[in-house]
Amino acid sequence: MSNDRTALTMQDAILTLQKYWSDNGCMITQPLNTEVGAGTANPSTALRVIGPEPWSVAYVEPSVRPDDSRYGENPNRLQMHTQFQVILKPDPGNPQELYLGSLRALGIDLDAHDVRFVEDNWASPALGAWGLGWEVWLDGMEITQFTYFQQVGGVTLSPVSVEITYGLERILMNLQGVSHFKDIAYAPGITYGEVFGQNEYEMSRHHLDDADVATHHGLFEAYASEARRMLDLELPIPAYTYVLKCSHTFNVLDARGALSTTERAKAFSLMRGLTHESAKLWAQRRAALEHPLGTAAAPAPAVRAELPTVPGTETLLFEIGVEELPYAEVRATADAVREAVTAKLAATRLTHGPVTAMATPRRVVVTVESVEPREPDTVRTVRGPKAAAAHRDGAPTPALLGFARGQGVDPAELTVIDVDGVDYIGLTREAPGRTAVEVLSDLLAEVVSELRAGRNMRWSDPSLSFSRPVRWLLALLGDTPLPVAVSSLASGTTTRVHRTAPEPVVPVTSAEGYAGFLAEHGILLDRETRRDTVVRGAHASAAEAGGVVDVTGEAALIDEITDLVEYPRPVRGSFDEGYLDLPPSILTTVMRKHQRYLPVLGADGRLLPHFLTFANGTCDEDVVRAGNEAVLRARYEDAAFFWRADLKIAPEEFRGRLDKLTFEERLGTVADRADRIAALAATLADRTGLAPETLDTVRRAGELAKFDLASQMVVEFSSLAGVMAEEYALRAGEPARVARALAEMELPRSSGGALPAGDAGVVLSLADRFDLVTGMFVIGAAPTGSSDPYGVRRAAIGLLNVLRSVPSVAGLRVRDGLCAAADRYAAQGVEVPAERLAEAAELITRRYEQQLADAGHEHRLVQAVLPWADRPAQADRTLAALERLIGTTAFADLTAALQRVLRILPKDAAPESADRSLLTAPAELRLARATEAVRASLTGREDDLDALTEASAPLVAEVNAFFDEVLVMDPDPALRAARLALLDDVAALARPALNWRVL
Amino acid sequence: MSNDRTALTMQDAILTLQKYWSDNGCMITQPLNTEVGAGTANPSTALRVIGPEPWSVAYVEPSVRPDDSRYGENPNRLQMHTQFQVILKPDPGNPQELYLGSLRALGIDLDAHDVRFVEDNWASPALGAWGLGWEVWLDGMEITQFTYFQQVGGVTLSPVSVEITYGLERILMNLQGVSHFKDIAYAPGITYGEVFGQNEYEMSRHHLDDADVATHHGLFEAYASEARRMLDLELPIPAYTYVLKCSHTFNVLDARGALSTTERAKAFSLMRGLTHESAKLWAQRRAALEHPLGTAAAPAPAVRAELPTVPGTETLLFEIGVEELPYAEVRATADAVREAVTAKLAATRLTHGPVTAMATPRRVVVTVESVEPREPDTVRTVRGPKAAAAHRDGAPTPALLGFARGQGVDPAELTVIDVDGVDYIGLTREAPGRTAVEVLSDLLAEVVSELRAGRNMRWSDPSLSFSRPVRWLLALLGDTPLPVAVSSLASGTTTRVHRTAPEPVVPVTSAEGYAGFLAEHGILLDRETRRDTVVRGAHASAAEAGGVVDVTGEAALIDEITDLVEYPRPVRGSFDEGYLDLPPSILTTVMRKHQRYLPVLGADGRLLPHFLTFANGTCDEDVVRAGNEAVLRARYEDAAFFWRADLKIAPEEFRGRLDKLTFEERLGTVADRADRIAALAATLADRTGLAPETLDTVRRAGELAKFDLASQMVVEFSSLAGVMAEEYALRAGEPARVARALAEMELPRSSGGALPAGDAGVVLSLADRFDLVTGMFVIGAAPTGSSDPYGVRRAAIGLLNVLRSVPSVAGLRVRDGLCAAADRYAAQGVEVPAERLAEAAELITRRYEQQLADAGHEHRLVQAVLPWADRPAQADRTLAALERLIGTTAFADLTAALQRVLRILPKDAAPESADRSLLTAPAELRLARATEAVRASLTGREDDLDALTEASAPLVAEVNAFFDEVLVMDPDPALRAARLALLDDVAALARPALNWRVL
Repeated sequence: MSNDRTALTMQDAILTLQKYWSDNGCMITQPLNTEVGAGTANPSTALRVIGPEPWSVAYVEPSVRPDDSRYGENPNRLQMHTQFQVILKPDPGNPQELYLGSLRALGIDLDAHDVRFVEDNWASPALGAWGLGWEVWLDGMEITQFTYFQQVGGVTLSPVSVEITYGLERILMNLQGVSHFKDIAYAPGITYGEVFGQNEYEMSRHHLDDADVATHHGLFEAYASEARRMLDLELPIPAYTYVLKCSHTFNVLDARGALSTTERAKAFSLMRGLTHESAKLWAQRRAALEHPLGTAAAPAPAVRAELPTVPGTETLLFEIGVEELPYAEVRATADAVREAVTAKLAATRLTHGPVTAMATPRRVVVTVESVEPREPDTVRTVRGPKAAAAHRDGAPTPALLGFARGQGVDPAELTVIDVDGVDYIGLTREAPGRTAVEVLSDLLAEVVSELRAGRNMRWSDPSLSFSRPVRWLLALLGDTPLPVAVSSLASGTTTRVHRTAPEPVVPVTSAEGYAGFLAEHGILLDRETRRDTVVRGAHASAAEAGGVVDVTGEAALIDEITDLVEYPRPVRGSFDEGYLDLPPSILTTVMRKHQRYLPVLGADGRLLPHFLTFANGTCDEDVVRAGNEAVLRARYEDAAFFWRADLKIAPEEFRGRLDKLTFEERLGTVADRADRIAALAATLADRTGLAPETLDTVRRAGELAKFDLASQMVVEFSSLAGVMAEEYALRAGEPARVARALAEMELPRSSGGALPAGDAGVVLSLADRFDLVTGMFVIGAAPTGSSDPYGVRRAAIGLLNVLRSVPSVAGLRVRDGLCAAADRYAAQGVEVPAERLAEAAELITRRYEQQLADAGHEHRLVQAVLPWADRPAQADRTLAALERLIGTTAFADLTAALQRVLRILPKDAAPESADRSLLTAPAELRLARATEAVRASLTGREDDLDALTEASAPLVAEVNAFFDEVLVMDPDPALRAARLALLDDVAALARPALNWRVL
Repeated sequence: MSNDRTALTMQDAILTLQKYWSDNGCMITQPLNTEVGAGTANPSTALRVIGPEPWSVAYVEPSVRPDDSRYGENPNRLQMHTQFQVILKPDPGNPQELYLGSLRALGIDLDAHDVRFVEDNWASPALGAWGLGWEVWLDGMEITQFTYFQQVGGVTLSPVSVEITYGLERILMNLQGVSHFKDIAYAPGITYGEVFGQNEYEMSRHHLDDADVATHHGLFEAYASEARRMLDLELPIPAYTYVLKCSHTFNVLDARGALSTTERAKAFSLMRGLTHESAKLWAQRRAALEHPLGTAAAPAPAVRAELPTVPGTETLLFEIGVEELPYAEVRATADAVREAVTAKLAATRLTHGPVTAMATPRRVVVTVESVEPREPDTVRTVRGPKAAAAHRDGAPTPALLGFARGQGVDPAELTVIDVDGVDYIGLTREAPGRTAVEVLSDLLAEVVSELRAGRNMRWSDPSLSFSRPVRWLLALLGDTPLPVAVSSLASGTTTRVHRTAPEPVVPVTSAEGYAGFLAEHGILLDRETRRDTVVRGAHASAAEAGGVVDVTGEAALIDEITDLVEYPRPVRGSFDEGYLDLPPSILTTVMRKHQRYLPVLGADGRLLPHFLTFANGTCDEDVVRAGNEAVLRARYEDAAFFWRADLKIAPEEFRGRLDKLTFEERLGTVADRADRIAALAATLADRTGLAPETLDTVRRAGELAKFDLASQMVVEFSSLAGVMAEEYALRAGEPARVARALAEMELPRSSGGALPAGDAGVVLSLADRFDLVTGMFVIGAAPTGSSDPYGVRRAAIGLLNVLRSVPSVAGLRVRDGLCAAADRYAAQGVEVPAERLAEAAELITRRYEQQLADAGHEHRLVQAVLPWADRPAQADRTLAALERLIGTTAFADLTAALQRVLRILPKDAAPESADRSLLTAPAELRLARATEAVRASLTGREDDLDALTEASAPLVAEVNAFFDEVLVMDPDPALRAARLALLDDVAALARPALNWRVL
């Protein structure tokens, strides 16, 4: 691409943004005079968003990320990049529109480019902060972070602030059409590289190679102690400034590779704590100063317009207009709204036709056909005292008078009513049906106020809460506007179409044919239509390039794309064929995960140098293509750089370098961990009885375990851990099965992720996770409600998934795995207290319980099998059987019989010794025989609930007969003991299967 | 003053300046992300001004000065103020005009306000940097620092950069008419105080009270060591960044009062060294990178226009247009130019009338009346070989041929000339006179290129060097333009009048009546006219307020004002009468030193609440008055604050606090120093034999010595040390004589400053200075050529001035003072090597020698009395006598006789023992008698040269007779020894007076 010399220079862009935001009511301030990693860290954001005072500000923030140091050589990555930060407090109600206006001011033609708001839920543990919002994509490039701050420094924000963070270098590269940051025209006649190039090189040297580690450790301590002192002196600003200095120093140490995971976690915890205290102290101090900037006013509650009269049967159209929903919420919200409307209508007497709900990222539309104009009238009768007690001596009793008074009527209006043949005093009132308008107006307001998503946020509205802000309501009953008012929102008769449309707000005159109306404005309301459009577009566009898209394999991604846009318009881009030398997994990981691009495959299934992206509606295809190609090129350039560098190093060498990476201070290096995993996998493989060849694979893969963690690719793209191990191992000449096992060791990656398939991979995967869980409990670093830095919960879930799903290890007990892992630690000299192992097992049990609950299993049944969590596959089987059997008579009888038995047996006490020869009654003998028969028939299937149920039918009868005929609690202790022993034999048959007591 | 709501907000001012400088070719960059004390420290200035690359940049720089912390309470002082920094590299030739344009852009009406460029020579020892330029005053308020950088980091700059540093808060306070920084409108609806108030308070707490001293010492060390490492790694940018961190930490420690003078000096030296290395390394790295931004082009040399013909006798007008000269250079330059033109004209044959030169801050104008149109023609004869050697045998000799060839003529053109009666071959040539135009064009170019001032600088011009840039030349011979070209300047026919005039550049058509022409443009060229205008204006304006100005007492200030402006226009302002409660010395110190205001006195000589300032030409008097009043109010507010705070504390308590102030690490605290001074003063007083009452005064003043150094007023206005001691002591009830002695202890303040008058003050002044000089030599901190942080030279000069001028201590010997001071140190346990005292004495001797040389005394005579430097008053007397006597016959005879005696005596050897009875010759006996007579007559006046000369007339005759009649060097050693002993008696009479050998 050639330089676009007519585009703004970087300095002009800054001046333009300052002017724009100043014109839009922001104060313009200066960057902070201490190093920060982002504009968010500047107290102008981090502290000022706290509390009730209004605060709208914009500033440039040169942001230092030592980790991103590349000596100025990487086209897209700088140790210091330039953010432009905007804070709008309170949310002005139209921040997206304001933001898009700023892009226009920068000369970005929004008609030509594809600008999208892509879900991004921002959280900074170090700041104790989180918010919901988006990355803004300009032709696939993330140019802005847009967040509704919900909490900062552990303090919940009220009002909520909007944060808009522009990445100026990226925007300028796109605007100017250059492919290296150094080529950005910074000012007339001078490039970015000329201004900052030497700085990038030298500061990269400092951050990556030359900063003195001991000195920086000392600086960190000094800053932290000053922060502490400042807090004690109740000076939040200097305190927080020192926290920022801590943070920068921490980042430098991290870039120097000088921090172990423990040190990192400790430092984080320290900084988080100091930040929280600073934030709270700030809030207190501002309150003590009586909030010099005043208190931001919340929008006034909306006033509902006068309700109209709608005489006929009409269709209801109700649209909830939102800012871009996360893709997963689009469908969920449509479903939830449909259910809510349906349920609420059902609670009225309004007659209506079908309820449908459809959604795009920006709207949820519900229609109700054939809504009658009003509820039918009804008569409502209220029962008072018995007629007999209504009069005494011809005069109304106090009971009657009290009833009349309570109903607010004259006693003369009361009548006598007959209830089940008894006369009561009663009051009969006409209950006229409400109009549909009245019913719907209230009902729809309720629907909006009760909207909730998986993760909810607050915005300018004083009382709503949802996944993203609700910005407008459209309600029509037929052609009549239907007034709905909820919190600060009042319904209208307009909708909003594409923001770049000539008229972004359009009037809607009728509820009929709304989907068609939207289609005319380039919006596909129906999800299936959108999905079809994606699929057809993908097929067509891929075909033009001589390729195909695996629409089945990519179903999840296509689902996602479908709910990312209102009108999916395919744009096909290409990348340099040279990148095809990289493993496809890298290329497609980047495409899918980072860019939501569909890969294009050749007829042979191999990757072609093309990709498909889907713009939102109309755009200039060439512009959008060029932008997306530039983004992908940048990402591939990064990857190729790492790939080439990594290939120069053998797996063994990488493996050797793991001893430089601290895993956890007390648990040793990553190399130690890899050694433990190798040994533990061998143990597990033995127990599982794998084939000798598989044992070899486990051994070799164990020797190389985790080696790719030392590779640059994995340092950069951590989600490729394992993937790269396989790639690099294959290229280093390792057998495919070893390479595969190295990859599978990392599976599953998430709670629903793919599981290892090969036996070697399975035991390595288990070994990995047993090691992690055990280790963390050993050092007392069990996860807490808010903190789980090592992902112990995820590891536990992974363990369970493997144990529950892979037959070859279904027999392994959790406790055995933990003990074996503990042995490895003990061998390494790390003491392993038994109670810690018990705690670890308990954690796994709890995760298992949660898994079952999440899957919708009934709590009672889950409790029945939970004691078998140690062998979760077994528990699963039992639970499945239980759910099949639970309604059957046979099982009900069995359960009843067994519970009789169990109730009489002392709980938790072993039976006393008993002389069974005392059992001579026929019922006793029959029961003993029946018991023995069942035991014999269950041999080897003691824990099989189906078998037990099937085999126990005769036993059930004998149990019942026994109880009918025999008094267990005989005065003779010996006889009593013998009878209890017999019952215990029965119970013993049942115990291996499940916990009958809870049924 | 009420808020001017139509004025720019602070953020608008910033945006306006960014736009303005961007439009004028500057790159706009961001503030540095580490704390700096000024925009100059940002590498965008500190490093980028080095080397040949062009670099024009503008940026905001929030600048942290911990020392200026005032908890946000002082209306004008902030720990963080906002600079707007502009660097123009190379100097564009019109930076002042560009700067004034920026003020216009800010909405400053230059016609109404008084904007002045007031000499300010900037130097930053820590940066190893200096430059010449100005403070820019807006109605008396310093709003901008304007500097031509000459050297940075010890590196001489080529090209020179222009640095313009705006103090935004001050400008905005003036623009908006508010009197407290907190009231500045920062953005619409939000004040500066609302944005930064809490920050000011909290960071002031940090800097002044709460920053941990030990931690900051550690930080300083850590930063310094990282800077050192980065330099060793050849990374100038991180190295310099660490230097900046050192510097900020240093400033915090300083604000915490945690640095002794030694520590300060050490730290400065360390930072200076690191800065120098960073700068040099930067220059090397840029050279290694081959200067990516290219090389700034120097202006092309001017080409002289074709010389015109001027047939008549005309007046020459030559104007050298400069940027505002320092006031002291205005007169000096006029004198120098007049002398140069006069001397250079004298070396030509051009006939001309009187030469006059006049100057204002912006121009030096020389006129030469009645310049003849050309030099007269002359005949020039060159002498060749003797005629006798010109021909041999009728043929020209090689000598003759050689001569002809050398002169470039045919031998036939040679003639015979008669020189003192001898015939020579000669050549006679017509030498036509040059035209005046030709002569003057060259001569004036020379004058410009040879212009020099006390301190000179470089600017855009490739080869000129002067006090300030020369920007234009105007040259007319009568009505004819006279072309003059020097370096990049060519003369023209325009001059520049006031920059705010409707036409700032006006054509000049004639050399005649130029002063009148300028007067029409509001410029008073003649200094006396300007001074009269000042004096008359002062009288008139003061009279309007019912007061007077002490024009005699203020002569020096009036001289200064006279050369600060081209048209002095008096503006009288007032201040709140409440400030009159402050001691007048404070009020007038602030007026004179800081503002160049003339105080207005009442009839009783007491200060009235008015002041006079002098604007430069026309202005809106109300605007200028208001601005100046605001400035004075701010300064008085500061002073009043300190005054009130200090008065709450008794002198003894201040005195007690001196033990918290380190004087010098090895020499103890300021309290130790005060103790020593007290004891030493008592000793000196004893020796001087003062009255008992005076001794009491010395004792009491000694007890309080230096107490005001702990007062806030003196910490702030250090020039008031002693002045405040007197004020505070009086108010604390000390006797007036004690208070006076405390004030006089600090005198003299400069080499020509007022001396202590009272006896107590005199001994305290001497004690102060003996203590300082001795102490510094004791620890080996004698001043070097470039470094004298403790002002040892000034102290030595002060000592000499007192000893030379005050009769009561004229008898004190320097050595006695030093030894007494050394005794005090010894008593304190500080060892004092004798050779150090000798070195200290030697330093004082050298200063004395310099004083005498500077006063114009002949070197030989100075050497003759210099051995008496130990008693400088005595040496002064002898020198005065010597200068009176040196031309007289009597003294010449005496000198000749004594030198005869001294020549024969062995130098530096004591006479051998001799038997004087051997002296029997009449001449011997007569000489012995004469010698004895002189000795007797001189008793008590042995060192009185006048007396010696008068008394010695008979002796001279006897000495001469002795030498005529007696052979001193008799072969008989005993006789010889006796004769030498006699002569030594004679010499002994002369020795106490002076060193005769050097006469």
